[in-house]
Formats: sequence, C-alpha cells, structure tokens
Amino acid sequence: MTVATQSLKELSLEELCINSIRFLAIDAVEKAKSGHPGLPMGAAPMAFVLWDRFMRFNPKNPKWFNRDRFVLSAGHGSMLQYALLYLTGFDSVSIEDIKQFRQWESKTPGHPENFMTPGVEVTTGPLGQGIANGVGLAMAEAHLAAKFNKPDAKIVDHYTYVILGDGCNMEGVSGEAASFAGHLGLGKLIALYDDNHISIDGSTDVAFTEDVSKRFEAYGWHVLHVKDGNTDLAAIEKAIAEAKAVTDKPTMIKVTTTIGYGSPNKQNTAGVHGAALGTDEVALTRKELKWEHEPFVIPQDALNHMHKAVERGADYETEWNKTFSDYKAKYPQEAAEFERYISGKLPDGWDKVLPTYTPEDKGLPTRKHSETCLNKLATVLPELIGGSADLTHSNLTEVKGKGDFQKGQYQNPNIHFGVREHGMGAICNGIALHSSGLIPYGATFLIFTDYMRAAIRLSALSQAGVIWVMTHDSIGQGEDGPTHQPIETLASLRAIPNLTVIRPADGNESSGAYKVAIEKAKQNAPTLLAFTRQNVPNLAGTSIEGVAKGGYTVVDSQGTPDIILIGTGSELSLCVNAAEKLTAEGKKVRVVSMPSTDLFDAQDAAYKESILPKAVTKRLSVEAAASFGWHKYIGIEGDTVSIDRFGASAPGGVCLEKFGFSVDNVLAKAKQLLG
Amino acid sequence: MTVATQSLKELSLEELCINSIRFLAIDAVEKAKSGHPGLPMGAAPMAFVLWDRFMRFNPKNPKWFNRDRFVLSAGHGSMLQYALLYLTGFDSVSIEDIKQFRQWESKTPGHPENFMTPGVEVTTGPLGQGIANGVGLAMAEAHLAAKFNKPDAKIVDHYTYVILGDGCNMEGVSGEAASFAGHLGLGKLIALYDDNHISIDGSTDVAFTEDVSKRFEAYGWHVLHVKDGNTDLAAIEKAIAEAKAVTDKPTMIKVTTTIGYGSPNKQNTAGVHGAALGTDEVALTRKELKWEHEPFVIPQDALNHMHKAVERGADYETEWNKTFSDYKAKYPQEAAEFERYISGKLPDGWDKVLPTYTPEDKGLPTRKHSETCLNKLATVLPELIGGSADLTHSNLTEVKGKGDFQKGQYQNPNIHFGVREHGMGAICNGIALHSSGLIPYGATFLIFTDYMRAAIRLSALSQAGVIWVMTHDSIGQGEDGPTHQPIETLASLRAIPNLTVIRPADGNESSGAYKVAIEKAKQNAPTLLAFTRQNVPNLAGTSIEGVAKGGYTVVDSQGTPDIILIGTGSELSLCVNAAEKLTAEGKKVRVVSMPSTDLFDAQDAAYKESILPKAVTKRLSVEAAASFGWHKYIGIEGDTVSIDRFGASAPGGVCLEKFGFSVDNVLAKAKQLLG
Repeated sequence: MTVATQSLKELSLEELCINSIRFLAIDAVEKAKSGHPGLPMGAAPMAFVLWDRFMRFNPKNPKWFNRDRFVLSAGHGSMLQYALLYLTGFDSVSIEDIKQFRQWESKTPGHPENFMTPGVEVTTGPLGQGIANGVGLAMAEAHLAAKFNKPDAKIVDHYTYVILGDGCNMEGVSGEAASFAGHLGLGKLIALYDDNHISIDGSTDVAFTEDVSKRFEAYGWHVLHVKDGNTDLAAIEKAIAEAKAVTDKPTMIKVTTTIGYGSPNKQNTAGVHGAALGTDEVALTRKELKWEHEPFVIPQDALNHMHKAVERGADYETEWNKTFSDYKAKYPQEAAEFERYISGKLPDGWDKVLPTYTPEDKGLPTRKHSETCLNKLATVLPELIGGSADLTHSNLTEVKGKGDFQKGQYQNPNIHFGVREHGMGAICNGIALHSSGLIPYGATFLIFTDYMRAAIRLSALSQAGVIWVMTHDSIGQGEDGPTHQPIETLASLRAIPNLTVIRPADGNESSGAYKVAIEKAKQNAPTLLAFTRQNVPNLAGTSIEGVAKGGYTVVDSQGTPDIILIGTGSELSLCVNAAEKLTAEGKKVRVVSMPSTDLFDAQDAAYKESILPKAVTKRLSVEAAASFGWHKYIGIEGDTVSIDRFGASAPGGVCLEKFGFSVDNVLAKAKQLLG
Repeated sequence: MTVATQSLKELSLEELCINSIRFLAIDAVEKAKSGHPGLPMGAAPMAFVLWDRFMRFNPKNPKWFNRDRFVLSAGHGSMLQYALLYLTGFDSVSIEDIKQFRQWESKTPGHPENFMTPGVEVTTGPLGQGIANGVGLAMAEAHLAAKFNKPDAKIVDHYTYVILGDGCNMEGVSGEAASFAGHLGLGKLIALYDDNHISIDGSTDVAFTEDVSKRFEAYGWHVLHVKDGNTDLAAIEKAIAEAKAVTDKPTMIKVTTTIGYGSPNKQNTAGVHGAALGTDEVALTRKELKWEHEPFVIPQDALNHMHKAVERGADYETEWNKTFSDYKAKYPQEAAEFERYISGKLPDGWDKVLPTYTPEDKGLPTRKHSETCLNKLATVLPELIGGSADLTHSNLTEVKGKGDFQKGQYQNPNIHFGVREHGMGAICNGIALHSSGLIPYGATFLIFTDYMRAAIRLSALSQAGVIWVMTHDSIGQGEDGPTHQPIETLASLRAIPNLTVIRPADGNESSGAYKVAIEKAKQNAPTLLAFTRQNVPNLAGTSIEGVAKGGYTVVDSQGTPDIILIGTGSELSLCVNAAEKLTAEGKKVRVVSMPSTDLFDAQDAAYKESILPKAVTKRLSVEAAASFGWHKYIGIEGDTVSIDRFGASAPGGVCLEKFGFSVDNVLAKAKQLLG
C-alpha cells in the first residue's frame, strides 16, 4: 500500500477538496437560512475518499448502467451530496443550483430527491429508508449479475455505497434490512456509518447507547472501525479497500467523526445538526479551517482535482461499452434481453398471457387469481422479482419452479423477506430505483401496509415502479380478528398521491389489475393490489379494459337509472345480486364496478358523467371497509354499506354477514334510498 | 437450589399441566378449524414454569394493581394464554369459552384482545408490538416505583414478562424498543424468546440467520439460553430466577423449543404454525404425549395444581393491601395521589390551567400553544409522561424543569425515545395499558405517523389512552420538502376508528384540543393532535367548547348563508379573511371551524344540520392537505382548496402560497362556487 505516502503528499489538495464540500454546505445552508450543515462538515472526509478514490460513475451520464450506486441515507445532509455532484462535474447541480438550496423548484431540495436531481439514486430523508434502499440496490445488482454475467464477460459489476447516521441506525427499518442483507451475504454492499454521537435531542447518550458494531456483527456483517474519521484519510481508504475485498458479507464501516467539524463553538453539539451556523460562527469556522474563499467560490485546484471524475467516468463507460459490445457479439440473445431490461420496454404481446373468465368459471379467491397472473406473467416478464414478508403461501406470491433468491442463488426471483414488512418495502423501492427494468413486488396482508406505509409512500413520491400485492383485504379475513382485518386501510392508501390502488372483484378484474400494475411499473409508478382471502364468483360484464378506467358499468337498465349501486372487490357480487332482485321489482338499476377510485378520478369529465350521471343522486356504495372517502362518489344524499368500527374474530362469512355484507342488507339499504 | 429434585418428583404432575395447555390449544384449534397450535405446544413448558413458579397475579382480580404483567407478543399463540387463564382460575375464560375459540363475540378471539378478555394486558397479533408494549409496561412500573415507593414501603413492585417469537424478533419495532430498554436498563423486564426456528415460510433459515442473542447483548441486555425448552423445566426455572436477580438490565432468555412439540409428523414444520393438526395427527399426538383425555377434558390433578394460583393470588393481594394500608397511614398524601392515579379520575378543576386567547394576543405556531398546554397541564396532572422521537425541540414537548426519564431517574416524565417512532408508539400503548392512570404522549412530525401507524391503530383498537402530539402538520413545514410534508396523512388518520384527530386553528383551539385529549385518555381512548410549525393568528370566535363539538360556527351572517367556508388549523384564518371580503361584497357567509371531523360526526343530526344546513350546497373546505374525505361535508357540488399531489421543498410561506393557500385563492374559489 502506498496510501500513507500518497495522503501525505496530497494532503493540502485533499484538505482543499474536503473543505470545498464543507463550505459549500455551510454557505448554502447559511444562504437558505435552513438546512443541516453538521453532517456534511463531519462526513466530508469519508465522502471525499469514497467519491475520489473508489466510486465508479460518469458525471456526464448519471444513468450509465454499471455505475456504483451511492445512497445518502442520512438525507438531511443533502448538501454533502449536492456538493459532490457539483464538484465532480455533474450537469445537474451547478453552483447556481447550490445557491438555490431549498428554494422552490430548485435542483437542490431539502432532502435528496431522485426525481429532481440526476445523480441522486433514491429519495432519502425519512431515516433508515436509504440503507434499506441500498440493500435493494445491492440485491438488484446481485440478481442481474447472476443472471447475465458470463465467465468471460461481466457486464453487471458495481458496488452500492451508503452513508448512514445515528438516526438511521435507531430506526427499525434499517435493522430489518441489515439483518436481511447479512442473511443474503451481499458482499458488494458497503455502508459507512457516520458515528458522530449527536442526534437532534443532543448526545446519543440520551437514547442510543447500544453497541452498533456488535449488532451488525450479529446480523452477519463484516464490521470495521475508523477511529478518526475527521482527518485520517488513509484509514478511511484502507477500510473501504478492506470492505471491497470481503465479497461474501456486506461491510459496515463505523467512521467516528465530529458533527460540524471545524466550527469552534458548535461542533459536537446538536446545534450544528439542523440549523445554519450564523454569520459569526461561519466566520470563525472559516478561520479555523483556514478557508479564505468567498461563499460559493471553490479554489481552482480543488475543482480541477475533483473534476477528474469526468475523465475517469468517460473511461469507465468506454471500457464498459467495450465489454458489453464483446458480450453482445458472443451472447446476442442475452444481450438483447439485457437491453430490453434497461430500456424499460415490455415485450410485444406480453399481456396476452393474462387469463379471462366467464361466469361459468369456478369462483376463486382473488388472491388465487393473483397467483395465476403472477405465474403467467413470469413466463414472459423475467424481470419480475419479489415475494412476501413471511406469508408466501397465504399471499400466494411464489413463482413456481423458479427457485429462491438466496446467498449464492441470486439469479432466482422468489424473495423470502422474512417478517420484515417495512424492510421489504424499502428494499423493493431500491430494486425499482436500480433503474434496470426489474419489476419488484412485495406482499403481505393488507392490514400490514401499516408497518410499511413510509416505504409505500416513498414508492409513490420517488417514482419507484413497485407492485404491492396485498391479500386478506377485508373482514372476510375472518378468525384472526380485528388486529388482522383492514377497515380504514383502503381509504388510507387511496389518499396517497401517485399510488394507484386497485381492488378487483373477480378473475377478469384481477387480470386487469395486473395489466395496469405492470404498465405503471414500467412508467415508474407503484400500484397497490388488494385481493380477497375468500372465494368470489366470476361475474358477467367485468373486464380487463374496465379496470383500466377505474370504474365502469357492469349491469345497466334502459334510461336513467333510479339508483346506482357501486361495488368493489368481493362486494361487487352483492350489488349484482341485489340489482337482479330490484330489477325484478321493476326498478331501473345500474351497477358500477369501481376497482380503482384513483383510475376513475383520472378519467375525463364526460366519461365520469357517463358512469355516474349527476342526475342520479340515489347512490349506494358497497365495500367491506370504512365509508371514509366514498361521499365523493355517492354525494351527501347517497348511502354506504360499510364498516366504521373495528372488525371481530369469527369465520369470514360470519363477519361479513354480521357487518351487513349480504344481498339482503344491500337490498334493504337500496330500498331505503329509493324511498 | 432444590429445583432438580423437585422437578423429578413432580414430573408427572408437571407433564400433566403442560400437556393440559397443549391439548387445550390443539383441541380448540381443531374445533375452530382455525388457529395456531404450534406455538402453544412448543412454549407450554416455559409458560407453565413462568405462570406456576414465578408470576404473581390474582385470577379473581385480574386488575389487581401490583400483578406481574404478562404479554404474549407472539399473539397468534393466543390459545396458550387462554389455556393459562382457564387453568389458573380466571373467571374470564371458562372451558365453554375455549370451545368458542375464534367465534363471534367469544372471550377467546383469534389474537389476545385486552378489551375482550380480562387477564389479557395488551392486544397482540401484529408482530413485534407486544415486546415493545412490554417495554412500556416496565417503564410504567419503574416510573411509579420511583415516584411512590418509600424505603419502608414498596407499593409498586412487579415484573413484566413477555413471550416473543422469531416473527417478533424480525420486526424492526421490537429492535427499536429492545434497544431503548437496554439503554434504560429496565431490570424488571424479562423476555422469553421462543426460539423454534420456524416461521410461516418454513425454516427461519430462509430469511433469518442472524445471532439474536448477540444482538440483544449489543443492546445492553442480559442474555441467557435454555437449550432444551421442551423438557428441561429446571433450566427454564433457573434462567428466570437468574433473570430476576439481574436488576440493572432487562433479560432475554432464548428458550430453544420445537414448534408443535409432540406432533409426530408436523412438529418442527411450518405446517403446525397456523393450521389445525387434523383428526389423524391429533390422534397421533395424543398417543405420542400419552394423553388419554377427551377434547376439553382436563385431568383433575392438573386443574387442582394450576388452581393453586387462586389461593396464591388472594394471598398476594392481601399482602399488598396490608403494605398499601401501612403506606397510607404513613404517607397519606402520596397514598391519596396514588389512589387517584389508579382510579383514573382527574383532579377537580384541572382544565382551569388551559389558557384562552383573544385576537389581540400575539400569533404563535400551534406547536407553541401545545407546549404551553403540556407545561400547564403538567402542573396539575403529574401523570403526564412522554416525549418525542428525537424531535423534542421541534415538537416542543418537554415539560420544563422536570428532568429526563433515564436509567436511575425513572421518576422523571420527559422521555427521549430516540429516532424510534414505531417503538415510541408501542411503548406509549404499553404505558397506557399499565392501567395505572398514567397519560402517555408521544411526539414526532405528523408525516412520521407513517412509521408508527401500526401502533397508533393499536392504541385505537386496544383502548389505550395515549395522546399523539404531531407537529409540522402541512406543507407549511417548508424547506424539508415532500418527504417531510404531510398531504394524505390527516385523511389516513381520520379514517382510523376510535381515534380522534384534532387540528386546532389557534390558541383557544389548542387548549380545546388538549381538553378533549386528556378526557379521552382517561376514558381509554387515544387522540391525535396536529399542530403547525408556523405562526397562526388568534381568531375571534374560536373556543375550547367549540373544539369539543368538532365543528362550529366562528363567523356567521343573518339568515341562510349563500356559502359556507369550512377551515381547519392554519387555514381557518384564510376562511375568516375571505369571509370578510365576501361580506363586504354583500354575500352572506358562514365560516365553520372543523378542528375534528371525528368529533363533529359524533354530534346529533340536529347539531350537524345547525352547522351545515342541507339547504346550503355551496360549501368550500380549506385545508392544506389532501381533499380525500372532504366530500362528506361539502357534497358533490362543493369544492375544496386542497393539495392532491406531493409537496415541495421551499420556505413554508412560499409552499402555502404556491399551492393556493392564500386569501385570494380562497376568495376566487368561493366566487367560482357562488357563480
């Protein structure tokens, strides 16, 4: 190793670069009067060593496929990442952008947002998510490498680096994901833990005194410690090199640092975590760190050095292009598939595999239809990868005959996430945001979306094309009782922007739901599918096309209806049966299937009016869930068959009957409305 | 120790008792054709030793204050708990109740529900919650002990025992709570980890291969291992005795067991986890365990032995009554306070401390009003205990001058939960369900309710009187950006049954919100309060009484209004200002403040009609959040000023303006409605 001598020789240049990062952060936060200078000041040395000496990326093509992935899990330190992007020559972040830190529509928002700033891989800020995304990114790499690489041609070969902080390590989601990463032995995942002993409430001594290194060892990680992360660049370099050399375990490098390093009065205090230093302290910090440059002025030597990343990046990409071109010559079929993956395109006619049904087909639980769809789709879309949080045979998410994703078996698509819903969510987001065409799916009982809601929200916000497969979608769940029966869950998910929630009624609608979900995934949008535990009949009039509209008519009468019954999922058949009886009594009844209010809301006004005409004010929604949100469709004069209390433990059929989900009760409520 | 000899001598009786537990579980699940026999069969020995040789409780008074608390964190094994309750003589679970396992309205629902079955302390089932509740129970004990005990009189002195499984240990929430318990050194918390290597997906080898014991050591726990949890009762007894002896650390006893122990073909498989054994296998298991009794028939020897708990329990309570009576004689003032705590009563006139305001009073952020309320209330309600998930000085939840709840300082009320929202939630539930009059509160940013939603839901389901203090309640949060700005969050929380969500508009309404929250807490119902980051003016017409109604008129006109503006929180002032302008233009305008749709929904029809008369169809809701749910109040013809996309990073005022939360835009929308 010539590291030490190198470090000595280049010390002043390195200091210049590191202080450039620090002062970009200090001055941007100062200008915005808002932000988090502490982390960038303390973590600048490790970030510099990582980005300057290890990370392979191409600033002029942030989406170059084989780049190392970098995640700032401690997303509040966003200025660290913006400084690195600017200094290494990304076009996405100019010095003007840095001056616009935290301002309306800037490229430099408060927390890193992948959809705003090329070069940012995932959206972080909510703590613990980033490290779990990193596990997903590393899983995507391992999967694609196992699938596409050949002994003589490695086209997938990159590391995933994460910087995380004390906050991330306190969050349960990081523990779930880290435990799973240890289980999987993800050797190309390297996490640098910015051990600065400070969180917002002050010293971590007030709440967080566990031995984090020992915990990661317990998870099966390779653990290293850099004792002086403030100045010992050689030790940081040595640790990262050691981490890279261990290929059968992820590595956690605890890097002990001083938050707000260089600020004479504020370093090592919570005061420097989340607020501007203030004019006086900025001046003192300039003095302390011997920084004589005006705000936003970076010395040319530092810029020149950091900009070498551009040349290196071009070389990396050229080299990889050569590798890929050789690969293509030797393995044209695999290369074509790989290119399709990366392009995000679906193969022609992929949706032909989705089955359709007639009322004569045997009734099944929609989770069973989901299983059929997933297995059919897997034959034409090998990019499907996912599984369940320890409910594989309840959620019915296994792709049969394809094997489990395990250590050394990364080519397989069936992931056993363990009882780690939140970790699963963030991992799926990471897989999607690897941006390599993979379509991840994660499954549990609908009620347990509560455990992973932060990750589901982030899938919607950060444009992660994930399919959330949720089964046991109502009190029809039965005996497990109110802890396991969703009531408000559908409403709470429908309220999330950019998330499409679909609750199909039968076989056709399940196929329709998957058609939407796959298309949305390729458009980088998540979909959440809610399936029944119990049998439902296949109904006349349901269709794949209907689902795409969100709401559509499945039973109609001549002329303006007297009443519209709106049903979703397992309750649609109650509406159909009630309509039959009402029609026999001479009423004009329309039944609208509304598998997705999100998709329905997205239709034009004329279509919506054609399905729910303003003239018809007698409307009854029927859904075995909370009434919350339904008045948008039924109006103040409408009514609901719904359940606005918690469920109960009893056989599913009993629960449904007791809570009023019977044809008789739908009929009674409809007649009440009809007056 | 004479344990070994005792065990040998009593072996057959012990076996009888243990098998009684096993077969009650086997036969109840068999009858219900639903449930989880595997855990009770494997964990029966540890449960027997714990309940028979250690636990202090009184079956005839399940609420006896000083009882040891028991939590079955692996709640799916509920039959274990029901069997114990039946065998030890609780009136709540008869043999008939056991025959009704998992049936409509039975005392033996699918998962343990504290509100259904006296003797069950907390509601479990969603994994990981129970162990975290246990941390809360132990914190409550430590707090009350430090507060009330005297050197010569220990009136608070019990252990908290938890049985948890692999699933619990995979969930992040358990890690958060365990890390915090280790930090706090809760010596009277003892967790028995049923290490049976099986979860629903099969062997834990597929997903969970970490070293759990080492992880708990890293958290600072005392860790023991019983290698043969199936038959070595002496080892179990020795371990629990050792655990009790270590008073400065919580103890985790890993008890290695065989799931479904005794079932020749199904033990040690996932097949026995969550399904009935089936007639043939039940017969084989009877043979294997030499069990000759009919279903639901318990040998008299076992019943006699287990029933000794009744006599022991009566003695424990008598002894404690004596202790308390001595205490009362010596410390009448403390005794009176203790009795008030336990009674759940509020002191007379407690609410007089809540401040009121006039429009002349300086505008402040409602989080600042929250701080004032909390600090005022703490002077009259010492039972308030809580804090923030590392956002103390943002949430403003510190009770000043009262000190931090820390190891050895358990008498203090300010808890630093660390960045552990979910753990905080479950811990607060545990504190509330200690049922000793404590009013716990937990705080974070409103958006991060997503991290703790499962615990918030459980507070509502399990009747835990917690106050959830949520600040930074809209895009007014500002620069942190969309990851930190709630949009759909209010709607998603309002949809939860039994949870009262209140978003006060100003100082008076903040006082009103706390008045409701405190009263609800004492009625065992949780309340979630949403406060602003930013300043809001104090408005004319707002009141403490108004908040209690959920919605009320703050500005009105003569006769039927032309339009009703409905505002909540920081947006109420926009409505008031817009109304002023509209009135000046000759319109008849009513402004309704709607701090809580939950409370408004609970009013009678006449009241609701008096506030929102059917005759007025022009209604505009104004809330800096999703429109989801508002059509119930505005109807199909109404409109909203709302935000149905994710937020953005910019100063809060800019965000509000850009997203249309200005008087001008409210005015424009109102005029549009007026036509």
